[in-house]
Amino acid sequence: MYILDSTEPPHYRISRIARELESKGIDIIHMEIGDPELDVDRRIIDAMYRAALEGYTHYGYSKGIPGLRRSIANYLNDKLGLDLDEDNICLTPGGKVAIYLALRLLNKRRIGILEPIWGLYYSFSKVLNLDIINVRTEFEDGWLPKDDALKRFEDVDLISIVNPSNPTGTILSIDTQDKIVEIAMDNDIYILADEIYFDLIYRDIKFKSFLEYGYENTLSIFSFSKNYAMTGFRVGFVVSTNKELIDRFSKYMRLVIGGVPPFIQFAALEALKNRDIVDNNRRFYREQTRYLSGELKKLGFDMVEPSAGIYIFPKVPNGIDGVKFTEKLLTIGRVAVSPGTGFGDYPEFIRFTTALKRDKLATAIERIRYTLENMD
Amino acid sequence: MYILDSTEPPHYRISRIARELESKGIDIIHMEIGDPELDVDRRIIDAMYRAALEGYTHYGYSKGIPGLRRSIANYLNDKLGLDLDEDNICLTPGGKVAIYLALRLLNKRRIGILEPIWGLYYSFSKVLNLDIINVRTEFEDGWLPKDDALKRFEDVDLISIVNPSNPTGTILSIDTQDKIVEIAMDNDIYILADEIYFDLIYRDIKFKSFLEYGYENTLSIFSFSKNYAMTGFRVGFVVSTNKELIDRFSKYMRLVIGGVPPFIQFAALEALKNRDIVDNNRRFYREQTRYLSGELKKLGFDMVEPSAGIYIFPKVPNGIDGVKFTEKLLTIGRVAVSPGTGFGDYPEFIRFTTALKRDKLATAIERIRYTLENMD
Repeated sequence: MYILDSTEPPHYRISRIARELESKGIDIIHMEIGDPELDVDRRIIDAMYRAALEGYTHYGYSKGIPGLRRSIANYLNDKLGLDLDEDNICLTPGGKVAIYLALRLLNKRRIGILEPIWGLYYSFSKVLNLDIINVRTEFEDGWLPKDDALKRFEDVDLISIVNPSNPTGTILSIDTQDKIVEIAMDNDIYILADEIYFDLIYRDIKFKSFLEYGYENTLSIFSFSKNYAMTGFRVGFVVSTNKELIDRFSKYMRLVIGGVPPFIQFAALEALKNRDIVDNNRRFYREQTRYLSGELKKLGFDMVEPSAGIYIFPKVPNGIDGVKFTEKLLTIGRVAVSPGTGFGDYPEFIRFTTALKRDKLATAIERIRYTLENMD
Repeated sequence: MYILDSTEPPHYRISRIARELESKGIDIIHMEIGDPELDVDRRIIDAMYRAALEGYTHYGYSKGIPGLRRSIANYLNDKLGLDLDEDNICLTPGGKVAIYLALRLLNKRRIGILEPIWGLYYSFSKVLNLDIINVRTEFEDGWLPKDDALKRFEDVDLISIVNPSNPTGTILSIDTQDKIVEIAMDNDIYILADEIYFDLIYRDIKFKSFLEYGYENTLSIFSFSKNYAMTGFRVGFVVSTNKELIDRFSKYMRLVIGGVPPFIQFAALEALKNRDIVDNNRRFYREQTRYLSGELKKLGFDMVEPSAGIYIFPKVPNGIDGVKFTEKLLTIGRVAVSPGTGFGDYPEFIRFTTALKRDKLATAIERIRYTLENMD
């Protein structure tokens, strides 16, 4: 009858239960949602305020103000060696809706994904009635796909990739990317690349954007949510070397949503002018991720060390089921995490958000230890 | 191939052409889009700034902060004699996306509309592949439906009504509303009521919300865009006496969009605390609408005097075709308006936005006069 029966991702469900517990006065440590425990830089907030006072409170910037789109183009050109201009970019109220709208706009039926993957792809596929064709990667292979597995992508209409990965924090090898793009070009398949974590890489690993191939059927998604800790601002953007695709995207954005509030766009513009903010945030994420992974290893968790982002995706110790552990950790330990079953068929794993302050992470570790010792 | 071929509403096209002319240095008076030429009250902007500084920059309020939803409930209870609480309300980034999501979420195929109607319904219906069953109203009948015409609604799955009307500014009679609700209840039809202009009524006419019937399959849409001149803030809300419907709506909102930025919700909360802002804005709209309609009458335009809102929908004088006049008015007069064909099959009419400052309206009148005198 309705759209959206049973499409709630597991980590949303956990988050909802956690909030119910909180409303009863139980304190919960939230490691299930990717919301960095960082303040937004004052310069960004002040720029938003100035823009609102100056009257940037009206319609008219549904694709994004040209100055911001130019600034984004310059930033990607510098970082990725591209040759973009403002017409290659369309602003969106967050990266999430950009992915949803891209799936909706391109109107493809068979969607190839590389698992484990951010759980919203499953929900969006249910809502949009899409067929998922998955290529699994395994912990034992460092979450990198076997070459012959990629052949499954030959039959799809669109390939959706999150790189660097959410939840594993790994980065595709250039060789794998080359193969994916080759399959896409040979079979006229669209590529939807979620590259939201690309400037939160904290190892010396080469990252290549899918945009660098210049393949015209490619859309890449970016966001200000994690790198600038601007989750609540809801500002992301879609990029393609194919301007006609961006033009269609921006018309759809305009029709359905009406754009990102202009004063928020000025906040984003100010963010791009102050790259020290990303550098500081990246350092924070790296340190917290290393601390948490080190402590979890001492407790018996096993994991591929992430190279980027704000998550780790370890195997739960002692063969404990990940869903069971998620529930015990919430009820006994008062720590909310995401079960691995939300990212594909990975029942032995769970995802932790690492972007919390050190003392909160230390408390979380104690609670995890207590849960492991006291669960039946 | 793509979704969204040829779904651009006529007034979006006019707006786009107008912007192209502006980029060539030609000054255009924009009367095609409903964006009031008013500043946002400083108290609202300051409240947003304070909230952002206080750290309301994170995820977690996708349905809306409880305080704002309570405040909205109280406001509607006061104005409409309802008995709502916070769980009857879900925030959305603007009224437009609320309407789109409602059509998408309810997943109904046959949509009944009362024409003339805000043009986006036609675009949304194309994008969502819905069938439109129209009930026409006529200028000669004061834009009110004939009773027997409403029978066409008996065969639909959802009835979409804009009341007070965009584009005509008229308000349904209670008798007509009673009949519509009776048809809906008898045939298990959903009602989607766009009541965005309900507190911009400037005549002594009784307004009744569709919510007042307590019919469980009713969703009403509201927004802060016009009453508080907060168009660029993108904040609206959906209301239903049916909490289960709101719950489904808020899950969909959370899944696809992620909510209205929390600091913007604090801006909206501040707006509701200062009802003098709406009173002032309503006075402005009333005066400008009366001025414009009076001057247009002198030029031979004929219209039903609007009772609410920020538009008038007159018949073009001398039997001139509305689309032709729209084009001439843009190219000769440098005034952008919306052709009546964007609101149904009304080729003799055009829609003007009235919410511009007096001197701009006076200039517009001169340009309209000049166009009438100089078009072939």
